[in-house]
Amino acid sequence: MSEKLWRKNFIDIEPYVAGEQSKNPDIIKLNANENPYPPSPKVQEILSEFNSGMLRKYPSADASQLKIALAELQGVNPENVFVGNGTDDVLATAFRGFFNSELPIVYPDITYSFYPVWCNLLKIPCKTIPVDDNFKINVEDYYAPNGGVVIPNPNAPTAIGEGEDFIIDLLEHNQDCVVIIDEAYADFSGYSCVELINKYENLLVTHTFSKSRSMAGMRIGVAYGSAELIQVLYAVKDSYNSYPLDSVAIETGIASVKDNDYFLKTVSKVSETRDKAMEKFREMGFSVTDSKANFIFVSHEKYSAKEIFEYLKSKDIFIRYFNKPRIDNWLRITIGTEEEMDALYREVENFLTSK
Amino acid sequence: MSEKLWRKNFIDIEPYVAGEQSKNPDIIKLNANENPYPPSPKVQEILSEFNSGMLRKYPSADASQLKIALAELQGVNPENVFVGNGTDDVLATAFRGFFNSELPIVYPDITYSFYPVWCNLLKIPCKTIPVDDNFKINVEDYYAPNGGVVIPNPNAPTAIGEGEDFIIDLLEHNQDCVVIIDEAYADFSGYSCVELINKYENLLVTHTFSKSRSMAGMRIGVAYGSAELIQVLYAVKDSYNSYPLDSVAIETGIASVKDNDYFLKTVSKVSETRDKAMEKFREMGFSVTDSKANFIFVSHEKYSAKEIFEYLKSKDIFIRYFNKPRIDNWLRITIGTEEEMDALYREVENFLTSK
Repeated sequence: MSEKLWRKNFIDIEPYVAGEQSKNPDIIKLNANENPYPPSPKVQEILSEFNSGMLRKYPSADASQLKIALAELQGVNPENVFVGNGTDDVLATAFRGFFNSELPIVYPDITYSFYPVWCNLLKIPCKTIPVDDNFKINVEDYYAPNGGVVIPNPNAPTAIGEGEDFIIDLLEHNQDCVVIIDEAYADFSGYSCVELINKYENLLVTHTFSKSRSMAGMRIGVAYGSAELIQVLYAVKDSYNSYPLDSVAIETGIASVKDNDYFLKTVSKVSETRDKAMEKFREMGFSVTDSKANFIFVSHEKYSAKEIFEYLKSKDIFIRYFNKPRIDNWLRITIGTEEEMDALYREVENFLTSK
Repeated sequence: MSEKLWRKNFIDIEPYVAGEQSKNPDIIKLNANENPYPPSPKVQEILSEFNSGMLRKYPSADASQLKIALAELQGVNPENVFVGNGTDDVLATAFRGFFNSELPIVYPDITYSFYPVWCNLLKIPCKTIPVDDNFKINVEDYYAPNGGVVIPNPNAPTAIGEGEDFIIDLLEHNQDCVVIIDEAYADFSGYSCVELINKYENLLVTHTFSKSRSMAGMRIGVAYGSAELIQVLYAVKDSYNSYPLDSVAIETGIASVKDNDYFLKTVSKVSETRDKAMEKFREMGFSVTDSKANFIFVSHEKYSAKEIFEYLKSKDIFIRYFNKPRIDNWLRITIGTEEEMDALYREVENFLTSK
């Protein structure tokens, strides 16, 4: 045993080191883009009345009732809907299914940090395309031939969102690869490109229940696309895991989708608080991007982002600081309740006046 | 758009065709190795009292409380425990993490059908080793150098289980690769090799909540191994999906693990019904393997398995028939309630007397 030759067959991967988590339940947590409001009361009803005896059976293999509910909501067919165990699962499945070109796939240099991770894991050649100095994605930069495109709209952590002209331009210039638009935050932007799947068969649009539907704890991700793309996603999924969504996730997911009034009300509350937050931070002397998401992206030219981050942490307010090129003087702040945001403003003002 | 060049980058995979499912809720379903009894009443309590407001937050990234409960149950440390979204997820993660040799991994020719699927998907060279004419796995056949070993104990669909001598012999002769013992059905056999992880650092043992814990609908799989193996599994998992288990799965999983009395009672009820079923089928003239699982494997020399399967299906009793070499005259029958099994015996007798 002493030589441990079995180690030589290990995958070559660095162990993940988890981020800092506070044990104090009374902190103000504005660092994970979670929704400050609970999910629909219908979700609570489903949970409270769920017959645990049902759990002895395997879940619906394709979560068909949830797909039907989502299809109705979006005005598409169930065959245009894929559901997975969180958007991470959906995106990893899509990368595996669609990105098998010799040409690199392309995505912005400042974006969701998991895209390069999956490329690395799946050995997909990839290339980042810099956003401009205002963090804007220029669609012309995506005209060159490539193995696939992934763009979050709105983008994270920049919070900037594009409209239909941008997406159509992108699709018109990328007809030989699959284009993924990651709409994790789109419910807060007022624009979704889902209906374009009827025109562009190579378009895949991903959604999540983790942000606008307040169900991060339940792990539900969705993709919309042509029947052909969706069929490939299921072929990939079924090839290694027959049952991605558990029965409780399916039932509570349906309850959330069917309570559209509650959904719209919550999204609108968060969006209003966000608009106020942008104004407030500008008043306090910050640069603030035009946010279309449930978070804002801010920077102060006089004080370092890291210093503000550390100060707020000492006051039990947690926001997100990225020690990364181009954005290391910026802060991503998730929109909380009005009360949480007021506490945040007070502490930021305290910081500024203490200087 | 007409050429659809984006198709050329699709992964090369056949779409999965789902098995036949009856729409009639009154059928007797003995074809999926599900438990006929509900999960612990504590699981119902957790569901009924679950505060849906918690769902707005991401789940615990490593399901630490569930790992602690499982570690206590097994007398190991939490660092020896990995949890995933069903055993399929756990096994796929392990295959990716541990099977990167030029030598083929080895497993029995008659066994769980997903092993070759993952090998194919992950491009892992593999080789099947025939079980003998009595479906027994001969440990000597696993002495040659290989890239890894996977053996389910008890095996499926043969239902045959091996004891500690076999496992130690296997491990002593396979010290240069990772050995996975898939114990999906071990709770019904009375023997688990989990404690051997303390001696053999290259041993990984997988469990599931889908059979003995009556929670197939919840998708919880577990692996036990040395801290080094478990760390590799988490490195793989975290590299593509940060949150495998949702918050409700974690909490109900803990409730199940902590109610050991109920667990032992249910397992013992299923095992008693199984022992009666083996006797009954032998009385009816069937060959029956010595089952250590929650299903039996039977064959009649006069009547074809397919014919019996079709007859029972016409009577709304669903069992499992495999149109595969070596086992195409055998039937896998999941152990149901006493009442379900009585109905099964009656119909099998009706079939036999009608001949």
